[in-house]
Amino acid sequence: MRNTHSQVTHEDARRYEERFAVRARKIKASAMRDLMALAERPDVISLAGGFPDMELFPADVFQTVMDAVRAEHLTTALQYGPTEGLRELRERIVQIMAHERATATVDQIMITSGGQQGINLSVRSFVDPGEVVIAEGPTYPGAVPPFTTYEADVVHIPMDDDGMIVDELEPALERLRDEGRRVKLIYTIPNFHNPAGVTMSLERRERLIDIAHRHEIMVVEDNPYGQIRFDGEPLPSLYELDEGRGWVVYVSTFSKILAPGLRVGWVAAAPPVLRQMNLGKQSEDLCSGTLNQRFILEYLERYDWRQHVARLNEVYRTRRDALLTALEEEFPASAHWTRPRGGLFVWATLPDYIDTQDLLARAIDRNVAFVPGGAAFLDGQGKSSMRMNYSQLPPTVLTEGVRRIGEVIAETTELFEGLGGVR
Amino acid sequence: MRNTHSQVTHEDARRYEERFAVRARKIKASAMRDLMALAERPDVISLAGGFPDMELFPADVFQTVMDAVRAEHLTTALQYGPTEGLRELRERIVQIMAHERATATVDQIMITSGGQQGINLSVRSFVDPGEVVIAEGPTYPGAVPPFTTYEADVVHIPMDDDGMIVDELEPALERLRDEGRRVKLIYTIPNFHNPAGVTMSLERRERLIDIAHRHEIMVVEDNPYGQIRFDGEPLPSLYELDEGRGWVVYVSTFSKILAPGLRVGWVAAAPPVLRQMNLGKQSEDLCSGTLNQRFILEYLERYDWRQHVARLNEVYRTRRDALLTALEEEFPASAHWTRPRGGLFVWATLPDYIDTQDLLARAIDRNVAFVPGGAAFLDGQGKSSMRMNYSQLPPTVLTEGVRRIGEVIAETTELFEGLGGVR
Repeated sequence: MRNTHSQVTHEDARRYEERFAVRARKIKASAMRDLMALAERPDVISLAGGFPDMELFPADVFQTVMDAVRAEHLTTALQYGPTEGLRELRERIVQIMAHERATATVDQIMITSGGQQGINLSVRSFVDPGEVVIAEGPTYPGAVPPFTTYEADVVHIPMDDDGMIVDELEPALERLRDEGRRVKLIYTIPNFHNPAGVTMSLERRERLIDIAHRHEIMVVEDNPYGQIRFDGEPLPSLYELDEGRGWVVYVSTFSKILAPGLRVGWVAAAPPVLRQMNLGKQSEDLCSGTLNQRFILEYLERYDWRQHVARLNEVYRTRRDALLTALEEEFPASAHWTRPRGGLFVWATLPDYIDTQDLLARAIDRNVAFVPGGAAFLDGQGKSSMRMNYSQLPPTVLTEGVRRIGEVIAETTELFEGLGGVR
Repeated sequence: MRNTHSQVTHEDARRYEERFAVRARKIKASAMRDLMALAERPDVISLAGGFPDMELFPADVFQTVMDAVRAEHLTTALQYGPTEGLRELRERIVQIMAHERATATVDQIMITSGGQQGINLSVRSFVDPGEVVIAEGPTYPGAVPPFTTYEADVVHIPMDDDGMIVDELEPALERLRDEGRRVKLIYTIPNFHNPAGVTMSLERRERLIDIAHRHEIMVVEDNPYGQIRFDGEPLPSLYELDEGRGWVVYVSTFSKILAPGLRVGWVAAAPPVLRQMNLGKQSEDLCSGTLNQRFILEYLERYDWRQHVARLNEVYRTRRDALLTALEEEFPASAHWTRPRGGLFVWATLPDYIDTQDLLARAIDRNVAFVPGGAAFLDGQGKSSMRMNYSQLPPTVLTEGVRRIGEVIAETTELFEGLGGVR
């Protein structure tokens, strides 16, 4: 007997809807994931992804490392591992964090299944329904599902070229306190922000930590892009500026410096916080992939990861330049955009009368895609903004993609002006 | 400046405690995970784990498969993948499920990060705080963290040699309804139950599905061990008996048939349920490891997984026999235990006056470990029971382990009798 679920009708869908938990009914998808299927169509030039370019990972390196895993560690690499991750890898992560000006000890590190799990565990561990999470506006679209599923009330703090405008943070905290709302987390991406492309200044970092200390609020510092740096030197991390007082949870990943398909990231936090997150991880997936952890460990023992990242950065810098040049040529004078010195993204803002969600529909007809800005806000802002990625495509393709987007912008502008709109 | 979190004191720990979300404060660890560190001590004979024996995975097979991944799919294997998993692997899973008498279509399958994520997503998607989950008593200790973090009220239904005593299910549902409590899920492991070691009879399966249909309650069928079968033929799955009416979520994994270190499992469910779980997975980890999915796919294309599993089963059968023989010889006549026809575990129950948590402390002094039965209940039952695993150790070591446990039982009994207790 073959039973397919062909009998499941719209009525059935309602049946489930009524049975889902409140947190499930409230969850909002990340726009990026919805766009992923689209981005996979080979005819689409997708600036929508946040993918590193895995063509840059050498096949011979993969072979050497995997041979070492097989020869020396196969049985344990295929077995369950500890929830907190392999100790040797956690020791290596301490060293990697030092290059980000974040000083941690091995007992402050837990391996996660990508940086995403670090974000999810942070929200899950701290936020009760209706409590407030402060986030930059725009914020990482991938943080939207954790925020919404744990029913956080997200309050955005605006950004400029120096990152979150921390001057607006304290008045917001005071207003929220006066309204009787409890702020549980401040979620921030200080380096090469996704999607905004900007970096928080040192002064603002110090100010942010001072505010967190005085108001006694946990900070989640999400730092997946710190090493994807085209010039300049790293600023001290918020984790460092906290001076061991335990108010910062640091989240990072091997996704951008090695490979996202391994799904290995980490969290650094005070041990009591880590113990709580360990329980959360036991619930979610028991442990992260042991084979992948071992692969990274054997890689780090044989190769200089900073040299690999330097090579990535050279390639990405050229691509960023190509994207910025194309924007100058193809986007209208009324548009403005960020000029990232690292990371993977440019954030552009078009005139108010252009809705980038509508623009995307037209763009897809021209086989080009980006992330509409509304995906990076929980309060309806961002409707005229867009995120563009430059890490995965060669300069000529990026240029062609921007040319196509420029075309649909021009058409939309003409249409608006034809309807009597004022430019 | 080095800042270690050395300043974090007990007072700080209380500070966090006060800040954690309710779900975080309510989560209970899985006893198995706590025991894992212990089990790793090389001098301990651990019957506590639930580990398959990865020595049985051939290194040359690993090499052949990984070479194929590198030669043909390296770039995509290292990249992010779709949240629902690689389509080709989902197609393979449809075939694997057919061997478990579970008929699904590819649109009913989502890849998860181990079976654990399937359990977690099920509870997260359906259960609001205070709602009831029905589970066997004992139930899988690894399900305790999802149950507690999502604040489910767990009601156990007792078991016998034919699995959950389904006759007691309907009166329990009626009682709960009369008390105004909402039952959201029935969680069950019909095949080679962990920890009970028994299999649900066909009659009870049919009865359970009939009850689920009449009471309109979702069933989570957790089936990680169905293929670890020493004799007999598979019974129809609950997923099959549901006849496509969409009341069953089927959870399984490659952990026992291939390797747990890959962290690849799956869920089969009606598409509206799967869409909801997909959102949950976006929040938790974006996608499961792409490299590991590709590894499994290339393995399945080159080797007969059923032949590999047949070899595992031969080895595990011998070990089960050794454990059962040792129990006959070393355990007191007042003890009784299950005789599993598959899976990884034997469940033993000792006289009432023996608390297996206390017994474990003494056993560890003798360098032997097991899981105390209380870990498999949320209501204080199971205090005189214990779970023993036989899949990871050779017969001689299993025999020695049971001999040591038998010794501490005998000592405890003597102590009890010396105190005037009645045997």
